[in-house]
Amino acid sequence: MAEFYTLRWCGNSISILDQRKLPDKEVYITLKSYKDVIRAIKNLSIRGAPAIGAVAAFGCALGAMKIRTDNVDKFLAEFNKICDEIVSARPTAVNLSWAINRIKKTVNENYSRNLNKLKSRILNEAKRIYDEDVESNLKIGEFGEKLIPENASVITHCNAGALATCGYGTALGVIRSAFKKGKIVRVYADETRPVLQGARLTAWELKRDGIPVTVITDNMAGDLMRRGYVDAVIVGADRITSNGDFANKIGTYSLAVLSKHHGIPFYVAAPSSTFDLNLASGNDIIIEMRNKEEVISIRGKKIAPPEIDVWNPAFDVTPGELVSAFITEKGIISPPFSENIRKLINP
Amino acid sequence: MAEFYTLRWCGNSISILDQRKLPDKEVYITLKSYKDVIRAIKNLSIRGAPAIGAVAAFGCALGAMKIRTDNVDKFLAEFNKICDEIVSARPTAVNLSWAINRIKKTVNENYSRNLNKLKSRILNEAKRIYDEDVESNLKIGEFGEKLIPENASVITHCNAGALATCGYGTALGVIRSAFKKGKIVRVYADETRPVLQGARLTAWELKRDGIPVTVITDNMAGDLMRRGYVDAVIVGADRITSNGDFANKIGTYSLAVLSKHHGIPFYVAAPSSTFDLNLASGNDIIIEMRNKEEVISIRGKKIAPPEIDVWNPAFDVTPGELVSAFITEKGIISPPFSENIRKLINP
Repeated sequence: MAEFYTLRWCGNSISILDQRKLPDKEVYITLKSYKDVIRAIKNLSIRGAPAIGAVAAFGCALGAMKIRTDNVDKFLAEFNKICDEIVSARPTAVNLSWAINRIKKTVNENYSRNLNKLKSRILNEAKRIYDEDVESNLKIGEFGEKLIPENASVITHCNAGALATCGYGTALGVIRSAFKKGKIVRVYADETRPVLQGARLTAWELKRDGIPVTVITDNMAGDLMRRGYVDAVIVGADRITSNGDFANKIGTYSLAVLSKHHGIPFYVAAPSSTFDLNLASGNDIIIEMRNKEEVISIRGKKIAPPEIDVWNPAFDVTPGELVSAFITEKGIISPPFSENIRKLINP
Repeated sequence: MAEFYTLRWCGNSISILDQRKLPDKEVYITLKSYKDVIRAIKNLSIRGAPAIGAVAAFGCALGAMKIRTDNVDKFLAEFNKICDEIVSARPTAVNLSWAINRIKKTVNENYSRNLNKLKSRILNEAKRIYDEDVESNLKIGEFGEKLIPENASVITHCNAGALATCGYGTALGVIRSAFKKGKIVRVYADETRPVLQGARLTAWELKRDGIPVTVITDNMAGDLMRRGYVDAVIVGADRITSNGDFANKIGTYSLAVLSKHHGIPFYVAAPSSTFDLNLASGNDIIIEMRNKEEVISIRGKKIAPPEIDVWNPAFDVTPGELVSAFITEKGIISPPFSENIRKLINP
């Protein structure tokens, strides 16, 4: 089987694997402008907090390349507008604004009247974000696998894998590293309605790696736990606040409550770029509400009366009290989170 | 809008609403033999514990009508075989064997050498099971609505409505009665993967009655509770054991754990025919495992890699400790269940 990639810089465009088509078809699409990048983020062709951050950074580079002026001030004005537009593509994952802020900082700190130099600095910073993400995930895997017991069956939610990052994955990175050590017996993948990232993406990704994976509907996780089939839960995150509350794909919170009820450890794997120390608690996280269509039809097939009311938050917030530990590229963060997150992430 | 019915006896056949086609099409199909009845139960054209019980009883009547012999002993031998075959259509809901046992008892207690008399007694008992179910549900509604506070938003799982019974519904019967008293502000219907009885059936049924209903994916219930949007949870049941443990559609257990975590009352509405006092606890309930196809494709549309492993129990078991009360046609049963269930159901 050929290697796949989530996103790749191609000189003057970005190639991404169109995740809406998986697992049926492996189709790569080319993003030629920053507007293409925004569209791809909004329509979920590319998703996952770290992947969104990286593609947004390359989107800035694309945008910068195509600004037609010799005047630095005009360039910067237009560039900042582009950055703002990209930031607003999706509100919940902090990695998006984190990446854009890094790019902006690079421009400010390496200010030059030479536009070509500025543009190449922007692109280089985007490349660094990409490379660092892969490195981070490998480290997350290394730290995280130590938490996984022998002969473990684990549940994961949504897709926090290679497909959600620049490679290897966060939650699936931990699973990959633990599998290499012979510790993982089985991964239960919540299908993750409404967009089915678990059934479509996690199942596809783990299957390719030969890691035993069983798809369950989201409402089966509790029963699996009651039967004693689950040794740990590992999920990713879209934004972690300074007290340990975090936003992640809708359904994560239920899984955390179920873990607590059954005394099963609940781990969150995420790079430090997912921590937002500006926010005091999960109450401050903006939750993206998505369209009704995602719930009442599945892959184009209607499943509910079309005129029905629907509630469709893309994410929920899990309080830090329900988290056993955060797994980051800098190490494991254990409670008390209000103290230990700041210590490790922003010492 | 024309009235609908779940099942109806039509002289020498049974007419049922084909629930696999809802909400797209309202199609009635005719069951002409007991084999048709078994097929309809297995393929979920008709489902819901009380509806399965009633259609099975009519199935016995159909089977009996078509036995071609004048010899009573031969008739009874064949009839018992038919009964056994119907009982084995689905294992978890006790209403199926309860109904068949009632029919068998009628035959034994009203033994006659006159085959026409025997056959009409079988049919009459089936009709009584049908009529009593509707009456039971009206009483369940009456008792249950008293538990619902003013301005209540409630969650229900799967479909325990008119479509799951001979009319009015159990959990939805309580909701209907509470709505008539002006107490229900909104019903959140878990879509209930894999077969989507919530999105397809509960949404359709409540919408027709003008009861405000919002469809959510199963993994959203916890978030709704955390936000304080839910005042009560009401579900049906497929088998309730003498200690208050009960089997119901997969996902019920998770909902019960979430209710407990949030201090939200969790009610189970079911007729006394759903209680199985022969079983000591939920550990003794046989859980039907269904096919992989239900999980990996939704209404014919593939959603996961086809060669993937799947786990698909149709039901889960919720321990009685998580139940606030059972609502039956004989009254409300509060804890301690080991004592109070026997008192009310089998005094």
